[in-house]
Amino acid sequence: MSDTVGKPIKCKAAVCWAAGEELKVEEVEVAPPKANEVRIHILHTGICHTDEYTRSGKDPEGIFPVILGHEGGGIVESVGEGVTSVKPGDHVIPLYTAECRECKFCKSGKTNLCGKVRATQGKGVMPDGTSRFTCNGKSLFHFMGTSTFSQYTVVADVSVVAINKEAPLNRACLLGCGITTAWGSVVKQPGIKGSSVAVFGCGAIGLGVVQTSSLVGASRIIAVDTNPGKESWATKMGATDFVNPTKLPEGKRIQDFLVEITDGGLDYTFDCTGNVNVMRAALEACHKGWGVSTIIGVAAAGQEISTRPFQLVTGRTWRGSAFGGVKGRTELPGLVEDYLAGKVKVDEYVTHHRKFDEINAGFHDMHAGDCIRCVVDMSTL
Amino acid sequence: MSDTVGKPIKCKAAVCWAAGEELKVEEVEVAPPKANEVRIHILHTGICHTDEYTRSGKDPEGIFPVILGHEGGGIVESVGEGVTSVKPGDHVIPLYTAECRECKFCKSGKTNLCGKVRATQGKGVMPDGTSRFTCNGKSLFHFMGTSTFSQYTVVADVSVVAINKEAPLNRACLLGCGITTAWGSVVKQPGIKGSSVAVFGCGAIGLGVVQTSSLVGASRIIAVDTNPGKESWATKMGATDFVNPTKLPEGKRIQDFLVEITDGGLDYTFDCTGNVNVMRAALEACHKGWGVSTIIGVAAAGQEISTRPFQLVTGRTWRGSAFGGVKGRTELPGLVEDYLAGKVKVDEYVTHHRKFDEINAGFHDMHAGDCIRCVVDMSTL
Repeated sequence: MSDTVGKPIKCKAAVCWAAGEELKVEEVEVAPPKANEVRIHILHTGICHTDEYTRSGKDPEGIFPVILGHEGGGIVESVGEGVTSVKPGDHVIPLYTAECRECKFCKSGKTNLCGKVRATQGKGVMPDGTSRFTCNGKSLFHFMGTSTFSQYTVVADVSVVAINKEAPLNRACLLGCGITTAWGSVVKQPGIKGSSVAVFGCGAIGLGVVQTSSLVGASRIIAVDTNPGKESWATKMGATDFVNPTKLPEGKRIQDFLVEITDGGLDYTFDCTGNVNVMRAALEACHKGWGVSTIIGVAAAGQEISTRPFQLVTGRTWRGSAFGGVKGRTELPGLVEDYLAGKVKVDEYVTHHRKFDEINAGFHDMHAGDCIRCVVDMSTL
Repeated sequence: MSDTVGKPIKCKAAVCWAAGEELKVEEVEVAPPKANEVRIHILHTGICHTDEYTRSGKDPEGIFPVILGHEGGGIVESVGEGVTSVKPGDHVIPLYTAECRECKFCKSGKTNLCGKVRATQGKGVMPDGTSRFTCNGKSLFHFMGTSTFSQYTVVADVSVVAINKEAPLNRACLLGCGITTAWGSVVKQPGIKGSSVAVFGCGAIGLGVVQTSSLVGASRIIAVDTNPGKESWATKMGATDFVNPTKLPEGKRIQDFLVEITDGGLDYTFDCTGNVNVMRAALEACHKGWGVSTIIGVAAAGQEISTRPFQLVTGRTWRGSAFGGVKGRTELPGLVEDYLAGKVKVDEYVTHHRKFDEINAGFHDMHAGDCIRCVVDMSTL
């Protein structure tokens, strides 16, 4: 047993002190886990657009100071009273979508949106209403129940899952958000085998949707992105077509173009951009009578989607999913096995690596057209 | 064989000469059916809001002069070359949603939206591009492929279905639109048994959704209407609750109220109003994680539905259906049998009767709060 058990741990964390500020790597104190909590030594973390959304100040629900990060991989350092699902030494992935297996949502069999820690998670605190992080005597907020931009973090026991120790955590950490979100959005949507698919946006999520659609046997996969550099990426992941909406004949809308080249529209479309105009295009690119459009991207606060109701009355369906509809504790271990067996690509998504003290540069990497995912090594400063 | 076969028939029809004008009962000439066409002696017809929408001039695709009407019942007078699906003497219901069983849509197994006669039907003509109606030498347009406001009409053979002769046509005509639309929207939506349902709008469609939800075993059925007179109707059809959105505590939105009284929202909601704001409320009244909202009402031209994409990302589904997703030729005969067996209510919807020359009064009836459906007897002048 580690001699840190039951004691606060001093370590480095990237703190965002206020909306719009760059992160600052600080020494923080991480309190021991209380009952039904788990303290994790985070080794690697991805940076995702959701972190940037809150950092930038655009998220109206953002609260500061905060330790961001939700795509991490680490090792359990210690557990609080009553924790049975993981134990010290387990390799784990924190889950921003908890799975308690006891609430109305978990028991419904219809959704992965667990209600157990939702309210406190949204307020940036642990289920007892308090934080485990302090810096210079000041309490810091948690983020998405995970706060992976810290060398040590504390999460609820329903918000973490143990995975095969053979999986390298500097890759498997991406299963904490992007790749799993994409994978689930496809595998949980019946009917994609043999069908046509269009994927709007070729970031990590979009490429994951392309890859998974290819995996399950879609007959045609059209990747859509305004960045021509994404064509080779999309093709590598299994896209059969690539369309750049900025290169269409003048005045032609992307949805109309796609309906034309697919003899009536796509069977399935996915928005992986978070842009509400693209969400509309994705719906309207669906085939009359049966097309299904799934929103995966997260839109900015206050923005709304719109369409003519005729689009739905004539048989299109508009839906969405969070974390790909995946129940993390139940399903992530299997997905990790699929990765280890070579069935699900993960390594390919890591285009950039950063040391922990370069984490702000990692945020800048994200905006570069050649970056799919930047992984931060939390142990190197 | 009738001596009218192969000859034009002179009869009465209610003609709408121009957008916004009242109908005028005129003598018209109805040409004999061409190949794959059927001439029907219409005995009874309902009046539906879609007729009024086009009559009023609000429908930008409305074309005039036209013979409206799409909820009719009649007897086949004669058939054109190649017609095998119905024969003279058959009691039939014209279908504004055709079923050819040969097109991509019909063969998909996923939709009732047949493509065979869609283009010409939308242009107010028969599949060969011409009209069968003339009045004082002037050609009149067809409407929805049915034009039931005429004592004789001609329809495509894919747009008509024979039903049991025991069914009274002054009731069964309602299966040509409203009741079938409601019925199909419920029975084709898996999962309603044992679930909670809210129905927005208690016209014929809404009451039909209430009735069918009750029939399939919904656990709770909340009817929503601003007209307090609809409460007894809704209750008669099986509603367990009635909510008047104009009687809520000040500032309370109907969707928030429904979410409160249902511990998180409805499993299924249906918009039967055609009002885009109500469509939004119906979606947002759905339960997070699994609620499904179906748009049945037809919105006015140019109007759009909106919501925050978060509503979908957190697991709600927005869909719609036309003619309830029902394949008319395949499914209507069975529905008529269910009516005759007392399983599906139809008689109850007929609140008003009109002689043919009172058809404009029938349109006014529709706007009265106590009218569910007005049926016009085409043989009485």
